[in-house]
Amino acid sequence: MDTHIKAGLQPVKEYQQHRARMLISCPDSPGIVAAVSHFLHQHGANIVQSDQYTMDPEGGMFFMRVEFDLNDLSGKLMGIKSDFQEIADKFQMDWNIFPLNEKKKLAILVSKEDHCLVELLWQWQAGDLDAEISMVISNHADMREYVESFGIPYHHIPVTPDTKKEAEQRQLELLNGKVDLIVLARYMQIVSPALIEPYRNRIINIHHSFLPAFVGGKPYAQAYDRGVKIIGATAHYVTEELDGGPIIEQDVQRVSHRDNVSELKRIGRTIERVVLARAVKWHIEDRILVHQNKTVVFN
Amino acid sequence: MDTHIKAGLQPVKEYQQHRARMLISCPDSPGIVAAVSHFLHQHGANIVQSDQYTMDPEGGMFFMRVEFDLNDLSGKLMGIKSDFQEIADKFQMDWNIFPLNEKKKLAILVSKEDHCLVELLWQWQAGDLDAEISMVISNHADMREYVESFGIPYHHIPVTPDTKKEAEQRQLELLNGKVDLIVLARYMQIVSPALIEPYRNRIINIHHSFLPAFVGGKPYAQAYDRGVKIIGATAHYVTEELDGGPIIEQDVQRVSHRDNVSELKRIGRTIERVVLARAVKWHIEDRILVHQNKTVVFN
Amino acid sequence: MDTHIKAGLQPVKEYQQHRARMLISCPDSPGIVAAVSHFLHQHGANIVQSDQYTMDPEGGMFFMRVEFDLNDLSGKLMGIKSDFQEIADKFQMDWNIFPLNEKKKLAILVSKEDHCLVELLWQWQAGDLDAEISMVISNHADMREYVESFGIPYHHIPVTPDTKKEAEQRQLELLNGKVDLIVLARYMQIVSPALIEPYRNRIINIHHSFLPAFVGGKPYAQAYDRGVKIIGATAHYVTEELDGGPIIEQDVQRVSHRDNVSELKRIGRTIERVVLARAVKWHIEDRILVHQNKTVVFN
Amino acid sequence: MDTHIKAGLQPVKEYQQHRARMLISCPDSPGIVAAVSHFLHQHGANIVQSDQYTMDPEGGMFFMRVEFDLNDLSGKLMGIKSDFQEIADKFQMDWNIFPLNEKKKLAILVSKEDHCLVELLWQWQAGDLDAEISMVISNHADMREYVESFGIPYHHIPVTPDTKKEAEQRQLELLNGKVDLIVLARYMQIVSPALIEPYRNRIINIHHSFLPAFVGGKPYAQAYDRGVKIIGATAHYVTEELDGGPIIEQDVQRVSHRDNVSELKRIGRTIERVVLARAVKWHIEDRILVHQNKTVVFN
Repeated sequence: MDTHIKAGLQPVKEYQQHRARMLISCPDSPGIVAAVSHFLHQHGANIVQSDQYTMDPEGGMFFMRVEFDLNDLSGKLMGIKSDFQEIADKFQMDWNIFPLNEKKKLAILVSKEDHCLVELLWQWQAGDLDAEISMVISNHADMREYVESFGIPYHHIPVTPDTKKEAEQRQLELLNGKVDLIVLARYMQIVSPALIEPYRNRIINIHHSFLPAFVGGKPYAQAYDRGVKIIGATAHYVTEELDGGPIIEQDVQRVSHRDNVSELKRIGRTIERVVLARAVKWHIEDRILVHQNKTVVFN
Repeated sequence: MDTHIKAGLQPVKEYQQHRARMLISCPDSPGIVAAVSHFLHQHGANIVQSDQYTMDPEGGMFFMRVEFDLNDLSGKLMGIKSDFQEIADKFQMDWNIFPLNEKKKLAILVSKEDHCLVELLWQWQAGDLDAEISMVISNHADMREYVESFGIPYHHIPVTPDTKKEAEQRQLELLNGKVDLIVLARYMQIVSPALIEPYRNRIINIHHSFLPAFVGGKPYAQAYDRGVKIIGATAHYVTEELDGGPIIEQDVQRVSHRDNVSELKRIGRTIERVVLARAVKWHIEDRILVHQNKTVVFN
Repeated sequence: MDTHIKAGLQPVKEYQQHRARMLISCPDSPGIVAAVSHFLHQHGANIVQSDQYTMDPEGGMFFMRVEFDLNDLSGKLMGIKSDFQEIADKFQMDWNIFPLNEKKKLAILVSKEDHCLVELLWQWQAGDLDAEISMVISNHADMREYVESFGIPYHHIPVTPDTKKEAEQRQLELLNGKVDLIVLARYMQIVSPALIEPYRNRIINIHHSFLPAFVGGKPYAQAYDRGVKIIGATAHYVTEELDGGPIIEQDVQRVSHRDNVSELKRIGRTIERVVLARAVKWHIEDRILVHQNKTVVFN
Repeated sequence: MDTHIKAGLQPVKEYQQHRARMLISCPDSPGIVAAVSHFLHQHGANIVQSDQYTMDPEGGMFFMRVEFDLNDLSGKLMGIKSDFQEIADKFQMDWNIFPLNEKKKLAILVSKEDHCLVELLWQWQAGDLDAEISMVISNHADMREYVESFGIPYHHIPVTPDTKKEAEQRQLELLNGKVDLIVLARYMQIVSPALIEPYRNRIINIHHSFLPAFVGGKPYAQAYDRGVKIIGATAHYVTEELDGGPIIEQDVQRVSHRDNVSELKRIGRTIERVVLARAVKWHIEDRILVHQNKTVVFN
C-alpha cells in the first residue's frame, strides 16, 4: 500500500487536466444535439464520449452526457459556462459541467457493519473510485483505527434517542456544503430531512433487498420466510420516502432452501458492497441523471 | 419432427422400467436416513441418487428424495409401499413413491399469450419434459390448430362474467381426477377454489414479476415507473392467496432506462417461459417438496 | 396465430414510415458529432436516439448510430444520402442509412437440430424480430412442413461429399443478392468462401462456448470430463477463420457435477437459441458496427 | 474490528464442539448409504445433512458427504474411525472425518496484486471463512504491515532466477506438514512440484478465464482485441499441468465494447476475489471431492 495514497492524495492524471463532463436534462425538441455539439466544436472542445436518451420520443424528456477534451480547460471553463447559458435557456435545460481535475468530495456514514465501508476504501485505494474521501462519520467508535490508517478523518457521533437532535446538528455542520456526495454504507439511522433537501440526489443508500420487495428493516428474514430463490440489493438515492427513492443499481444472487437467514445475510453482504460501490462509481463519474423518481444511467 | 411424438406417445425408456422416486417429509429425528436406506437395501433396491435436507437441525423438518433402481418394479411396488408404512408411521412421514414408467399427466391452461405454451410444447416434443400432455384448455380459440398438430386435445372454454360459473364447472369435469398437474401458462383467469383444494401444490402458475415485488396485474408498468434495473419472473404453486403461494423458481434479467414498457414485456416473456418450463420439469421429476409456504427443491 | 403473419407479411408500423437509422465508422477527429447532428437538423430530421463511441480517444476510431424521424422519408432519402456524401468524404466515413420501412430479408440455414430455428420463427411471429424471413435452407428435409406452415419457402439442398460443389452452387443462386442477412441456426456444414466474401459481417453463426475452451468435435463431453461449472454460447459473424469472427453476443449458464453430457447439451440448447436470437435482433435493428475483428454493439 | 479476532483466534462455536463431516468416494455398489447411515445411527450420531451423488449409475463412482452431531465427539472420534474401517474396506472407500472443532490451517501466497488477499482476510475476519490463517508468504514486502495488523505472520521470500531453488526450499520448510490448505491469491510464481505432490487437491489457484480462452500472458488484451462480451475467473486445484487442474468454481460478468483493457482488468479483479473466496470456503467446509480431473461440489 502506497503511503501517498494513504494520506488521501489521489493524483490528478494528465488527461484529466483538460477533460470535463456535461450533463443535460430538458424537454425533447429538435436540434438539441446539433446545438450542443456545434457549441462545443466552436469552443474548441473535442467530444470523446457522448450518450443521449429520449424518454418517449413524442413530447418526452431528453437526457445527455458529453465527455470532452479542451485545452486550457481551467482557464476557459467559466467563459464556456457563461456562453452556454443562452442555449440552456432556449431548450429549458437543467445542466452542469464537471471538470475532471476537481475530484468530488465524499463523506461515508457507517454504523456497526463494516463490509460496505471496507469495500469502498479498498476500491478507492486501488484507484477505482476517483474521488476524495473527506471523512467517515459513524455512530460507533469501532472503525476509527482502520479508517484513520488511510489518512481519513473519522468522526464518532453517537446517536441515542435523547441526543438524536444534537447528533443531527453535528452531522449537518460537518457535512453541509463541505462534501459533494454522502454515502450511507449500512448506516442504520434515519437521515435528517434537513440533510436530504440540500443533498437531493446526492445521498446514496444501499438497501439490503431487491426493492421494492421487502421494504423495511428485516428483509433477509422476510426473504427466508417467503422462500425466494434469488436475493438482491438495491442502491438508491435517498428521498423523504423510506426506501422509495430513485433506484441506481441492483444486483442479485441465486440462493436455495439450504441457505438459512444468516447465510442469506452473508451472501447479501457481498451483493450489497458490490452494488453500492458500483452506484458510487457511477455518481462520481457523472453517469446518473434523475427524472422524477427514475434514473437514467449512462454506463 | 417425429410423427410418433406428435401423436403424444413418449416411449418409456429402458432404465425407467425399473426406477422409482420416493419423497419424504417428516419431523427430524435420529435414524431416518438409516431406516430408509436400510429398508430399500433389504428390499433389493439400489439407490442411484439421494438428497436430504434438515430445516433447522434442532427440532425442525426433514426432507428426503431418493431415486432407486429395483428389478421387477411393477410387480413389487405394491408390496414395498405396504411394507414401508411401518417406517412411515414411526417417523410420522408424509411420503410417496413415483415409478418412472408412469408418466405424469399434464393439463395446460392458456389465454391469448402463447409464449409459455409454445415453450412447453417445444420442450416436451424435444423430450425434455418427460410427461404426457393430456389436454390444453383455453378461454380463446386461437391456438387450437397449433395444439392439435401435436396430437393434443384442445378444449375451448370461453369465460365471460355471465358464464363464469358454468365454465369453471366444465373445467372441473375435464380436469379433476384426470390429470396430475395443472400448468397455468399465462392463463389470465382466476382459478376456481374448487380446483385449488384437490390440486394443492399441483397447480403451477407463472407470474410476470419478481415476486413479492409487483403483485397484481400490471407488473411491467409498475417496474418501469419504479425504474428497476432488473426484472424477473416467478413460478409458484397456486394457493387461495393471489400470487402468494410457495415459490418454485425465479429468474431475472438486467434491463436499463432504455427499455420501455413494451420492451420490458418482451424481455419478460423470455424469462417467463424459461422459468415456467424449469418449474414444470422439476415437478415432473419429483424434485419439489412443500412445507408451509416454502419449497425445498432438490435440483 | 394470425394467418396474415403466417403468410409472411409483417405490417410496417406507422412510426416506421418516417424513421431511419444511420451507422457511421471513421477515424476520430474533432467536429464529427457537430457535423452529423447539424446536417440532420438542417434537413429537418429529429434525432430520437443517438449513440457514439470512440475507441481510444487519441487517434482511434469513432462509431456512431443515429435514429431519426423525418417527414416524407421515402421522398427525401435519396437526396439526403447524396448531400451527406460531402461530410462522409471529409471525415473518411464508412456509413449507411437504413429506413425502417424497408425490412431486412433473412435466410435461415439449418441442419437436423431445430431449437434455434424454432426460436427464431417464434420470435419473428411474435413480432420481436422486425424482418422478413425470405427462406429456410436445410441439408435435411425434416422441417419442411413446420416451416411452410409459416408461409416461408423451404429449400432442401442435401449435401454429400460428392454433391458438395453443386450444393454450394445452388445455395449461392438462392441467396446471393436476394437476402440481407444469413443466419446459421445450427447449420453443420462449412459455408462456402464464395458466400462469405459478399456477405462480410452479414452471416451470423451460433457456437457453443466453454470456460476453458475446448477445441474439437465433442466439446460437451470434454466440458463434462473437465468438470466445468459454467457453459455458454457465442454468436459471431462468420469469417474465413473457423469460429474466429467478430463476437456479437455471449451468454452462459451455471451447471454442476450433477449435469451429465446430455443434460449439458439440453442446457446448452436454451443458451444457444436465446443468444442467437439476440444477435439477429441487434443486427436487424442496425445496432452492430464491426471494426477489425471486434464489434461495437449499441444496445 | 475486534482485537481478539485480530490476534488470529476464531472461537469454536458451541455446536461445532460435537459436529463432524465425513467425506467418502468409492465405486458405486448397492447398500453404501444404508451401511453408512446405519453405522452412524448405531454409534449415536445424528445426521444433520447428507449429500450423495453417483456418477453414471451403472458401474460408476459414488460420492458422499455427511454432516453429523455426536455427543462427546472428541472422546469418541478415534473409536469411530477405527470401527468404520471395516465398512470402508468392504466398499473400497477413500474416506475421512473432519471434526469442526479442529479448524483447517491456511497459508496464503501472494505477489504484488492484493485484491484476493484483502478479500480473504476480510471474509476471514467477518467470520465467513471458518479457518485459521497461519501465514502469508509473498515474494514482495509490500503487504507486511497490512497482514501483520491482523496478527498473521508474514514471510517475505523474494524469488529471482538465481535464488529460485533456495526460495522454494524455504517455502517448503515453512509449509510442508504445517498447513492444511495453500491458497494462491494471485501468486505469480510457478509452484514447486515438490509442493504439489504432498498437497494434492489442497492447493487452490485463481485464474482469469474468457470465452473463448486465450492462451498466453496478456489475456485481457487479447479479450479486448477479440471483443468478448463476458469475462470470468476460474478457481481450481493445482496440478502439474499448468492451469489444468480440477475446476472448483467459476463465475463471469458481462462487459461491452466500452470497457478498455484496464477496465476489463478492474472488473476481472472483482470476479477473481469473489470466486477464489467461494472456492476456499467450500474447501474449508469439506464440500469438495475430487475424482480424476473433476470436482464434485456439494454446496
